[in-house]
Amino acid sequence: MTISIAQAQAVIEAAQARATALGVPAVISVIDGGCHLKAFQRMDAAPLGSIDIALGKARTAALFACNSEDVWEYCKPGAPAPGLELSNGGLMTFAGGMSLKSGDGAVQGAIGVSGGAVTQDQEIARAGAAAFSAR
Amino acid sequence: MTISIAQAQAVIEAAQARATALGVPAVISVIDGGCHLKAFQRMDAAPLGSIDIALGKARTAALFACNSEDVWEYCKPGAPAPGLELSNGGLMTFAGGMSLKSGDGAVQGAIGVSGGAVTQDQEIARAGAAAFSAR
Amino acid sequence: MTISIAQAQAVIEAAQARATALGVPAVISVIDGGCHLKAFQRMDAAPLGSIDIALGKARTAALFACNSEDVWEYCKPGAPAPGLELSNGGLMTFAGGMSLKSGDGAVQGAIGVSGGAVTQDQEIARAGAAAFSAR
Amino acid sequence: MTISIAQAQAVIEAAQARATALGVPAVISVIDGGCHLKAFQRMDAAPLGSIDIALGKARTAALFACNSEDVWEYCKPGAPAPGLELSNGGLMTFAGGMSLKSGDGAVQGAIGVSGGAVTQDQEIARAGAAAFSAR
Repeated sequence: MTISIAQAQAVIEAAQARATALGVPAVISVIDGGCHLKAFQRMDAAPLGSIDIALGKARTAALFACNSEDVWEYCKPGAPAPGLELSNGGLMTFAGGMSLKSGDGAVQGAIGVSGGAVTQDQEIARAGAAAFSAR
Repeated sequence: MTISIAQAQAVIEAAQARATALGVPAVISVIDGGCHLKAFQRMDAAPLGSIDIALGKARTAALFACNSEDVWEYCKPGAPAPGLELSNGGLMTFAGGMSLKSGDGAVQGAIGVSGGAVTQDQEIARAGAAAFSAR
Repeated sequence: MTISIAQAQAVIEAAQARATALGVPAVISVIDGGCHLKAFQRMDAAPLGSIDIALGKARTAALFACNSEDVWEYCKPGAPAPGLELSNGGLMTFAGGMSLKSGDGAVQGAIGVSGGAVTQDQEIARAGAAAFSAR
Repeated sequence: MTISIAQAQAVIEAAQARATALGVPAVISVIDGGCHLKAFQRMDAAPLGSIDIALGKARTAALFACNSEDVWEYCKPGAPAPGLELSNGGLMTFAGGMSLKSGDGAVQGAIGVSGGAVTQDQEIARAGAAAFSAR
């Protein structure tokens, strides 16, 4: 089982609603459990540079079955895996990426958000992820 | 002027409606005039290989302000630009990509479709492009 | 559901047994339905160039839910999708790659074989795929 | 002389046995002295992101005839080769990669492991390398 287009749409709509409420023009991407793009929206006025960041956050979350910022704990200065962020063609290790899991913990997909402040991206991603969990 | 998210959504919805009518699980991508991803949907059961093809058709159409299959006329055997398809990191030179232009002919974006037979992809892309032209 | 390591091992063992019977030193790769490497063996004396070919055949088969050589029918001279083989970072469009499907037709993985003549690679891949189907 | 498939299998089996004993779903890769993939296994439930890391650790170890973490001593803050980890398409500079050498010190191959905590990956790699040394 991997994320359906109906699920992906629900995730994007919930994230977009939160982005709009925050006044943040965001890029919102949803990938499947194998890191393949499922749905994507770039809101008007979102920076072009946020496309790759949103995709990278989603990929990072799916690859390690976690939130994108969790990876930073392993590769920040003094942590046990220096350079981990250089693996897999480059990871995005700050907040805004969240894996989407089924009840048994299997990764069904991930959402990645970029466009605002990091805490805003994270809040938008959480709103999207909640719409997935609710199904 | 470049394509808005509202326009991109309308293009994708029209294309998806046609794909559903044809019974073709398709990947539908919309990029802006600068070749940056704007909106994307992969319908359930579409082949994974169609992701890159749909993106490539849209990119090819935007890069040359034409339909993707028009590029083939320049690089097919005996044509004056052999190897053109190898430029720009690789072009997709069969039907399913169409540029989206404003009244003055400026490229505002492009749609790329993959998932069915080439003629089906082309029909789906045309349905999407018509939703853009109608605005 | 995607291919398990036990299934992947069974596929590789059956393929390797056939390769040995044919006297062909082969590279045998198995990927999951999302094109991620699951198991791999390079027999002694197999050409180094066969590593990328075996991986590419498996990837081609998984991306399009078919045999690798089926893709050639769409992009060979005169066919409707010229240049298709340039998509997805380059496809391998000759025999030796086969997708592995569950009863409902969903792609669970793929096998890719290279090292001998194309017909030998195909025979080895079939032996591997049969071990998957038998489960 | 470079690692044989029989040797590579023995290395992988020993590593997999240790991973199972530790309860760590790991990716285990073995490359030859020229950095070309020889054998590979991804245990069920190992993170997808571990594929590239396991391959990277093995490559790092083979390239410099050492353990992957030894490279970190040359490029960590204050060390004489800042940015060394960016060479060779990106190195993996934490533990879990070990070169496999013959009695005269020549590099015959390398093992790379990822999936657990860094110390677990290292323990699994050592178990694999010991199976090589024993030959």
